[in-house]
Amino acid sequence: MGVVTLSTDFGWNDPYVGIMKGVILGINPQVRLVDITHALSHHHLLEVAFVLQSAYAYFPEGSIHLVVVDPGVGGERRLIGIQGKDCTWVGPDNGLFTLVLKNHPEAEVVHLNNPHFFLPTVSNTFHGRDIMAPVAAHLSLGTPLREMGPLIADPILLPVPELEIKDKALIGQVLRVDHFGNLITNIDQKILSALFPNASFKIVIGPETITEIHQHYSQGRPGDLMALIGSSGYLEIACNLGSAAEIVGFVSGVELKVMVIRKTAL
Amino acid sequence: MGVVTLSTDFGWNDPYVGIMKGVILGINPQVRLVDITHALSHHHLLEVAFVLQSAYAYFPEGSIHLVVVDPGVGGERRLIGIQGKDCTWVGPDNGLFTLVLKNHPEAEVVHLNNPHFFLPTVSNTFHGRDIMAPVAAHLSLGTPLREMGPLIADPILLPVPELEIKDKALIGQVLRVDHFGNLITNIDQKILSALFPNASFKIVIGPETITEIHQHYSQGRPGDLMALIGSSGYLEIACNLGSAAEIVGFVSGVELKVMVIRKTAL
Amino acid sequence: MGVVTLSTDFGWNDPYVGIMKGVILGINPQVRLVDITHALSHHHLLEVAFVLQSAYAYFPEGSIHLVVVDPGVGGERRLIGIQGKDCTWVGPDNGLFTLVLKNHPEAEVVHLNNPHFFLPTVSNTFHGRDIMAPVAAHLSLGTPLREMGPLIADPILLPVPELEIKDKALIGQVLRVDHFGNLITNIDQKILSALFPNASFKIVIGPETITEIHQHYSQGRPGDLMALIGSSGYLEIACNLGSAAEIVGFVSGVELKVMVIRKTAL
Repeated sequence: MGVVTLSTDFGWNDPYVGIMKGVILGINPQVRLVDITHALSHHHLLEVAFVLQSAYAYFPEGSIHLVVVDPGVGGERRLIGIQGKDCTWVGPDNGLFTLVLKNHPEAEVVHLNNPHFFLPTVSNTFHGRDIMAPVAAHLSLGTPLREMGPLIADPILLPVPELEIKDKALIGQVLRVDHFGNLITNIDQKILSALFPNASFKIVIGPETITEIHQHYSQGRPGDLMALIGSSGYLEIACNLGSAAEIVGFVSGVELKVMVIRKTAL
Repeated sequence: MGVVTLSTDFGWNDPYVGIMKGVILGINPQVRLVDITHALSHHHLLEVAFVLQSAYAYFPEGSIHLVVVDPGVGGERRLIGIQGKDCTWVGPDNGLFTLVLKNHPEAEVVHLNNPHFFLPTVSNTFHGRDIMAPVAAHLSLGTPLREMGPLIADPILLPVPELEIKDKALIGQVLRVDHFGNLITNIDQKILSALFPNASFKIVIGPETITEIHQHYSQGRPGDLMALIGSSGYLEIACNLGSAAEIVGFVSGVELKVMVIRKTAL
Repeated sequence: MGVVTLSTDFGWNDPYVGIMKGVILGINPQVRLVDITHALSHHHLLEVAFVLQSAYAYFPEGSIHLVVVDPGVGGERRLIGIQGKDCTWVGPDNGLFTLVLKNHPEAEVVHLNNPHFFLPTVSNTFHGRDIMAPVAAHLSLGTPLREMGPLIADPILLPVPELEIKDKALIGQVLRVDHFGNLITNIDQKILSALFPNASFKIVIGPETITEIHQHYSQGRPGDLMALIGSSGYLEIACNLGSAAEIVGFVSGVELKVMVIRKTAL
């Protein structure tokens, strides 16, 4: 049957997502359509990349992931397809797939320029409907990505914030905030336990310090900032029955450092 | 299998849409359900008509379009089915289908009054669940619309704003705003190029004047008002990386004129 | 094929719901997935129970209802499955299923502790993904609930507000508010007509008195408070083309009494 996921910045209130689904079902009536989220922001493409990166591994092999966050629609930017070992991505070449490409160095990247797989009429402003949705539908029917355009070697990669280690401190940053106000960082559990065995560290975020790492949300004192390893394996700043984002005043798109320091150093 | 689309004013937070889907799946377990939008407003039925009109053409032949924006539920208003050449509509007879009926003058309109296709118990306040959902489900199984009630000839039509042409000016209006703040007008690209060849016009909207028409959003200067032909073929007032609706202070339901004037006339 | 419904407090903006769907489709590619709502609140578990209770009866026999409102994730709380006559529920044992258990005293309750049906890696913070979604998927394939853990006899039940009858008055309360601002009470139509034949009563809610009961919304004077029997059979306080919740100043989680009094008593 094939699974096509949809992720966009269209919100839930316009008919645009439904229209793309109509186009896909017109080409592959058997396809399974799954919304990942339509609340992505075209202002923060790297945050989009991180949000979606946490989802892909949980979809069946062979899934097609359609990502339409495309502020440059109609302009010079290319549309691309990425053939990974287990699944395929379709979307604009604007850096959205930075993490996909980093994590799948073997993936083939195709410039989607074969109009045979587009709708007969292509508008200037809605390539999600006119190009990406039909391409995803054809992929879900088994058409090889290679038929949809030439291979390219230079997809756009955004700079990814790296961890810094200095003076016994590990410095990362908040990558995204979720609906509960949990702040998800780029500090991997493995690095944390390698650098600070026995959880011998304190965490500093903005004006706040957290001295303990918990196993799950309900161990935190309601209203207090807490730290734990989130469901994607990264250090997360949270608040039991409250919003960590509110407590620390997190604003999407503004860099927020998270520093992990050996306890004795404080 | 059959596709049933759902469009309502129920919002996303209540169980009402899910309940209608449960009813439909109980009758046709194979049906494909697609949400168009649940953020419609019963205060602006003509805007609803325009929003949905932009979507229908993209769904497969044979689709059933269920529209539940029904402030008169339980009262005198009729429920109707409309059999077009390519698809079928189901909803209240309150003007929602004004554009469908204008665009499909050949369509048959049926008053849905055959309780054989309703749920056994019909409430006074939720006909989406008790009447329209089961009717749509039976239609998706292939039951002819004609079995569901008598033909009628007087469905309700709302007055549709027409374009005015006077003194070399074309006057239209904003019909709806989307999630990005784009203002979609009733000025058709074809009329525009017939009246003003070579794009020799200026656009006046509220206190603002736009002197150029662009091909796509990213050609606009970030933050500035711009004009282009939107994905449905109508003149659209937009703002690259911003909201045109905010700039001109658009309020849903308040008439907002858009005047196109020959450049030399300004 | 099997239907799995999803109800959570995850909101619509994060990828969490999509991820659960990916997990389910990986186990049962044929399953039909239906969202009931993702706007539930972990602060008001009884309200969640009432919202969902209004939905279950409309889903096909054999449906699996997955409910992930789980502020205690990773802690001591159990995860449970409930085998009713017509359908199965899966979720945390925190009182969410209070009404299900009251209405299905014959239901078997199983503590979901057989890791054979979990994802291979179980996080501390997202059991919706790692335990409940795969369990629901396996149930939808026909695996008996009994294989997933031992029967238990002590699931958590929350206190349910009971109607009071004193001095010819019936006192109930508002259980939930919907998107339209309708206030749904726990006063059953049957009790109302038994106690007050011929609709000989007045309704007092906060500072407001309603002297009539209508059949449907559009009978109310726009902007005025009105009463009717809602689509689930309970007394509802509404406002034609307006929000009853705004008029009476309803706040979710704060008890709001509704008193029904014989008319002559006022």
